[in-house]
Amino acid sequence: MALKVYYDLMSQPSRAVYIFLRCNSIPFSEQPVALRKQEQHQEAFAKINPFRHVPAIDDHGFKLTESSAILKYLSNQYLSPQSQHWYPKNNQQRAKVDEYLDWHHLHTRLNFMMYFQHKILRPVVNKHPVNDDQVEKYRKGIEKTVASIASYFLQDCKFFLGDRISIADLQAVVEIEQVLSSAYDPLVGHSSLQGWRERVREATAPHYQDATKILYQITARIQQLLEKENSDKHVQNN
Amino acid sequence: MALKVYYDLMSQPSRAVYIFLRCNSIPFSEQPVALRKQEQHQEAFAKINPFRHVPAIDDHGFKLTESSAILKYLSNQYLSPQSQHWYPKNNQQRAKVDEYLDWHHLHTRLNFMMYFQHKILRPVVNKHPVNDDQVEKYRKGIEKTVASIASYFLQDCKFFLGDRISIADLQAVVEIEQVLSSAYDPLVGHSSLQGWRERVREATAPHYQDATKILYQITARIQQLLEKENSDKHVQNN
Repeated sequence: MALKVYYDLMSQPSRAVYIFLRCNSIPFSEQPVALRKQEQHQEAFAKINPFRHVPAIDDHGFKLTESSAILKYLSNQYLSPQSQHWYPKNNQQRAKVDEYLDWHHLHTRLNFMMYFQHKILRPVVNKHPVNDDQVEKYRKGIEKTVASIASYFLQDCKFFLGDRISIADLQAVVEIEQVLSSAYDPLVGHSSLQGWRERVREATAPHYQDATKILYQITARIQQLLEKENSDKHVQNN
Repeated sequence: MALKVYYDLMSQPSRAVYIFLRCNSIPFSEQPVALRKQEQHQEAFAKINPFRHVPAIDDHGFKLTESSAILKYLSNQYLSPQSQHWYPKNNQQRAKVDEYLDWHHLHTRLNFMMYFQHKILRPVVNKHPVNDDQVEKYRKGIEKTVASIASYFLQDCKFFLGDRISIADLQAVVEIEQVLSSAYDPLVGHSSLQGWRERVREATAPHYQDATKILYQITARIQQLLEKENSDKHVQNN
């Protein structure tokens, strides 16, 4: 029985785990969970993750949720000594990866995820009217988050830890990538961060591009729907 | 130069780090940062942690923020083999601690912290009127969080990992303890969690009790102020 990975490439943390596995040639059995079909709420998946979130893994009977915990577990379990830059064994370097990944949840994850939900998901999927106050609140949160990543976590380095990519860079970039689909690039004006994003994409090519293809296909479709809706409204109002 | 620890016992994550250090007899130089005097905004502290949050450490020149990252770093750096139950070296056990600590931020931490802010801090310190919608939103979040801790993280065990306490139990309990000061005990109705909280307190005695003493002293004073304010309003309205 292989390592089973439950994921959907529309989910940012799923993409991080998927890209990591592919970059490190770790064999796994793909267990797609289609969020658009609400498959995460089926009883079979609840036995893997009662929180009904992706990603989740089942490694020969050992079940684990939470993408950062999964990335750390997989690093400890499967990486060769040459690949340990992803999650270094040196205690101080490891602590700096842990520091970003702890900070991530209430800053990068919260602000980018909630912006995407209010700007894209709720209006398009649930047909709620856009809540401009909430969009603006999380847009401001994104601005502060991005400034902190530039000044504290990246500084003048190529990656958060220095010369080599780590799981901290990967978690940050997949979250930042998600809002690009709403035609908003929060890294504009931060050339050091734009360079860093490009380096993460290159360091994980072609898996990064494979994993994000579906996001861009679906959001192109969403943009068409939104434009059609706006133009219909315009016709009705005139 | 010793390990320097910047903290304020009114901060939940500071208490976790302080209790952990005392329980494990790790020597450190106390660097109190009085939040009530806004000392976290002084320039000297910004050099330690530009985010101006406690706790933070400086271990012989190595600076680190984020309480969970600090607890993991200190475990790796200073624990004897007998004390490794706090953050086990076994990869699957360690992954279960990481899983809770990742989940913690957007569930336990977010809901309990925001409830405390809306119910206590903003009305008392900033004299804002209580926002009942926000209090109710985070109270419901607390109820869901507590139910998930009982059914998923604790189950029928003594502690999250089984028979021995870990840094995951400690982070969870300090956050839950904070709202008791608003005369609301979210563990009522969850006898397994009440037993667990008691076991965490016992396993960390007397340091747990030392670290929470100031919280209870200050919140007793806050309750007096709130009662006085309510009775003044009552007199004005009659």
